[in-house]
Amino acid sequence: MTSRPICVLGLGLIGGSLARAAVAAGRTVWAATASESTAAAARADGYDVAPSTDEALVRAQDADALVVLGMPLPAVPGVLRRVHAVAPRCRLTDVVSVKVAMRDAVEKYAPTARYVGGHPMAGTAESGWAAGSTTLFGGANWVVAADDGTDAEVWADVAELAWDCGARVVPAAAEEHDAAVARISHLPHLLAAVLAAVAAGDERGGEPGAGALAMLLAAGSFADGTRVADTRPELVLAMCEGNRPALLTAVDDALGRLGAARGSLASTGGLAATVNAGHRGRQQWRTARSAPELKVARDTDMAGLRELGRHGQVLVGWE
Amino acid sequence: MTSRPICVLGLGLIGGSLARAAVAAGRTVWAATASESTAAAARADGYDVAPSTDEALVRAQDADALVVLGMPLPAVPGVLRRVHAVAPRCRLTDVVSVKVAMRDAVEKYAPTARYVGGHPMAGTAESGWAAGSTTLFGGANWVVAADDGTDAEVWADVAELAWDCGARVVPAAAEEHDAAVARISHLPHLLAAVLAAVAAGDERGGEPGAGALAMLLAAGSFADGTRVADTRPELVLAMCEGNRPALLTAVDDALGRLGAARGSLASTGGLAATVNAGHRGRQQWRTARSAPELKVARDTDMAGLRELGRHGQVLVGWE
Repeated sequence: MTSRPICVLGLGLIGGSLARAAVAAGRTVWAATASESTAAAARADGYDVAPSTDEALVRAQDADALVVLGMPLPAVPGVLRRVHAVAPRCRLTDVVSVKVAMRDAVEKYAPTARYVGGHPMAGTAESGWAAGSTTLFGGANWVVAADDGTDAEVWADVAELAWDCGARVVPAAAEEHDAAVARISHLPHLLAAVLAAVAAGDERGGEPGAGALAMLLAAGSFADGTRVADTRPELVLAMCEGNRPALLTAVDDALGRLGAARGSLASTGGLAATVNAGHRGRQQWRTARSAPELKVARDTDMAGLRELGRHGQVLVGWE
Repeated sequence: MTSRPICVLGLGLIGGSLARAAVAAGRTVWAATASESTAAAARADGYDVAPSTDEALVRAQDADALVVLGMPLPAVPGVLRRVHAVAPRCRLTDVVSVKVAMRDAVEKYAPTARYVGGHPMAGTAESGWAAGSTTLFGGANWVVAADDGTDAEVWADVAELAWDCGARVVPAAAEEHDAAVARISHLPHLLAAVLAAVAAGDERGGEPGAGALAMLLAAGSFADGTRVADTRPELVLAMCEGNRPALLTAVDDALGRLGAARGSLASTGGLAATVNAGHRGRQQWRTARSAPELKVARDTDMAGLRELGRHGQVLVGWE
């Protein structure tokens, strides 16, 4: 393991938890945030918050630190411009939930940075510094983008940071990551929103009070199915809109399956195909949770790494 | 409060919990079940299980008990035939999750029974006698059908049973109940099934292993959004298929909203209308959970009772 210093830009739930976990693992960590109140809160908790993004990046340049972008996608271009101006060849990763749009942004705004995309699959409906914790990433899967041409040294930096934070590393091509998260994260957010709106009778006239009765009766299945609709809308929009091509494919798949269920219910009245497929999906997920944990040779190439993630395997360290 | 005896037919999660709660409230309770192993388990736990449905119904006839049907809808007609043969004028209610189809079945198979439909809105993904508990209905909403022409004496019997079980009573017309549960219970089951199938890549070719990567990465939003897909498929089918007309309306609403989101994502790329509507729906639900709890005059007519439920109010006793 290296003890490469970490420069975290953005101290929301994910960036803030990463800063805490990296400090707890013994790393030298400093941060910057666009929010004065967040900076004050993090400093009060004992964390090293630079006066500005530029000053944090100057330190990163000097120390050859790994810079972590911890802001929502819409805020990324502005920060990448500062990276390019201040630390153009820095080691760079991120914790944003889409990887193709991030890669495109880096190529556009900070083309000489040594960028390797990352995505720790952890979170809660909460957001902000105060919601963070040292243990947020414990046992979580942390995708590290393994496209051909990736800088192997920075790839290792990111993997080691993930391990230091208690996570397991999943190597994946950027496109494969985006297709997967469209189906397991972004589509769930859209379906939760649709369900909550249908149940509440949002913006539909209907019977007077029909929405009130439905809301009164709503319990377990509604509560579970709409829980993520509590997430701040701007965070959901940043994720979903940033993954447009992959999300469109996932939405079309869902529309096709829901339309088929509708047709079957209207004609034969039967929903067995739909319900059984869903039951099987949950079983597959439960099986996948006991993924084999591997150690991998440090010189494994990107194609070899990707193949592991594609087969549902996770990395927990070097051989 | 009366201490009317209770005859429970069916000892699954709901019927079994009802038997336990009614005994705990001091009622005289006996039961029958089609399952020998369930009968043995319930007897071992100290409950009075008659040797057959007919024998339980003879006792109900003699004691003027309230008979509770606690089996899934597909098993109801067979039991109603025995009700009609053995206790044709008995006080009768049920805990089945659809009310129009139940009313139709009673009119067809046990037309002289004094039937008032009921639906305690409680449950877990578990099923069977062993999963039941005395406290399953604590604080839950228990719909009692309040259509015109309902037998007011039996309506009061059912309400008092619900209160004895720790629940709150929500009066509703059968059709309004079915429309509401289609949106807050049956549609969530269908969307959970669709989501689990899309995420797992069920029955679609796709990239080799694309489903494995998605299943590996699936966490919070997928887990919440698909939790009810763990329910035994035959229970989901009995609920959903038994509420066909109302569920079709709810599915069409969901298809319309998901299609609109798809169109917006493909054209402008924006999902704000969808996501904001979902966020509002959750807020409405949270507000509805603090429904006013009322006591009501015992001679309130069915129209007056329905109006209370329609406005999201719950009854906790007689004035």
